[in-house]
Amino acid sequence: MRIDAYFTVPEVDPASLGDATVVVIDVLRATTTIVEALANGARAIYPTSSTEDAVRLATSLGREDTLLCGERKGLKIEGFDLGNSPREFTAAVVGRKKLVMSTTNGTPALSVGREGARLLTCAFTNLSAVARAVADAPHVVVLCAGRQHRFSLDDVLCAGHLVHRILERGQGEHALDDAAQAARMLASAREPSVELLAKTVGGAMLVDVGLGDDLEICAEVDRHDIVAEVKDQVITAAKG
Amino acid sequence: MRIDAYFTVPEVDPASLGDATVVVIDVLRATTTIVEALANGARAIYPTSSTEDAVRLATSLGREDTLLCGERKGLKIEGFDLGNSPREFTAAVVGRKKLVMSTTNGTPALSVGREGARLLTCAFTNLSAVARAVADAPHVVVLCAGRQHRFSLDDVLCAGHLVHRILERGQGEHALDDAAQAARMLASAREPSVELLAKTVGGAMLVDVGLGDDLEICAEVDRHDIVAEVKDQVITAAKG
Repeated sequence: MRIDAYFTVPEVDPASLGDATVVVIDVLRATTTIVEALANGARAIYPTSSTEDAVRLATSLGREDTLLCGERKGLKIEGFDLGNSPREFTAAVVGRKKLVMSTTNGTPALSVGREGARLLTCAFTNLSAVARAVADAPHVVVLCAGRQHRFSLDDVLCAGHLVHRILERGQGEHALDDAAQAARMLASAREPSVELLAKTVGGAMLVDVGLGDDLEICAEVDRHDIVAEVKDQVITAAKG
Repeated sequence: MRIDAYFTVPEVDPASLGDATVVVIDVLRATTTIVEALANGARAIYPTSSTEDAVRLATSLGREDTLLCGERKGLKIEGFDLGNSPREFTAAVVGRKKLVMSTTNGTPALSVGREGARLLTCAFTNLSAVARAVADAPHVVVLCAGRQHRFSLDDVLCAGHLVHRILERGQGEHALDDAAQAARMLASAREPSVELLAKTVGGAMLVDVGLGDDLEICAEVDRHDIVAEVKDQVITAAKG
């Protein structure tokens, strides 16, 4: 298996993704929230790139069983039903609902990632399920959403733990590019924790705006045994 | 001191560099070669972004005491005097010469970097001299040249060792962004070596084209006590 990693979205040449299983990571918090929502019974999640697109899509899907979700600078978008805090996405709130989601960094990464052969989302909360799901892929591209097109340590640590999980399965030879090697080195002996996430720029920002409690869910490895797969721009729970 | 790092050139917003001392790193091999050339008596180095610009500039500087240097895919550009191998830049060859240099990754990084307040180049070979030279700067931006706009492990390890060197000097408080933190983590307990460089994509490529012997100089920490500074698009040896 060939494993490449990208730490920022603008680095990616979408044309190079053709044969790849792409795994998008946005630990704080889009992909953590996606896993939480699907695990708690949301039927489907529709990522959109703008607030306006989100409102338009929610209207066309039917507002009665659709929730508008999204953040700007960490906080819920005005007039939306939910922000981007995984704690909000409980079974009572999202069960059997469709979710339209607009987030600052996660959505653009998903948009580039759909040029691949298969597109999954990953967080610490579903690490092992994703490692299992990609086990037979010849080429895996781990795409970190980053923060405003910058390197984000939380995403890269998660990417490194995913690489470790894939290598632990030990099937065949693995060729890692420089970024995948670096992510693996960074993750070695660095288990995710609230403290570690709080030291990142994104984590410190969440603490600043009063959302520090989100970090507890975001740091929980394998909280759910669920794979989130994107097909035709819709995210649903998939068999690993 | 605030220390930010960029692992690829396209990530950089040049407008954000105004107050920064920018340190460009291209271990394999542009910044290693620059240090070698200046240490061996080259009077000045003129980085250019294209082969055509290089030829034009060399002609206007006067071909009798100017050398044309540069590589494409690691190998010397046809018709040029020198490639980009630090071993070529001996005192006998470059002493008292002006060098016009065109390299694939190093030159674009230098071009972005000149938006800062001060611009230095760094390799493993002049690590301590650079750490000393930036000691009083309020804001240091470490800009890794990367490979074809991708993450390059050799540059990031050098960035991490530079961050370590700066922190070791212990002057005042230091605020590191996520990328600077990650570079520091990666460099911990990972001394540069020929073996480590040969495992990177760039190092393996040099070995493939028969330039593996370059790695020995590239991995040598503090081979020279010299700071290379860029002013008005010309690189010269500066006092630390």
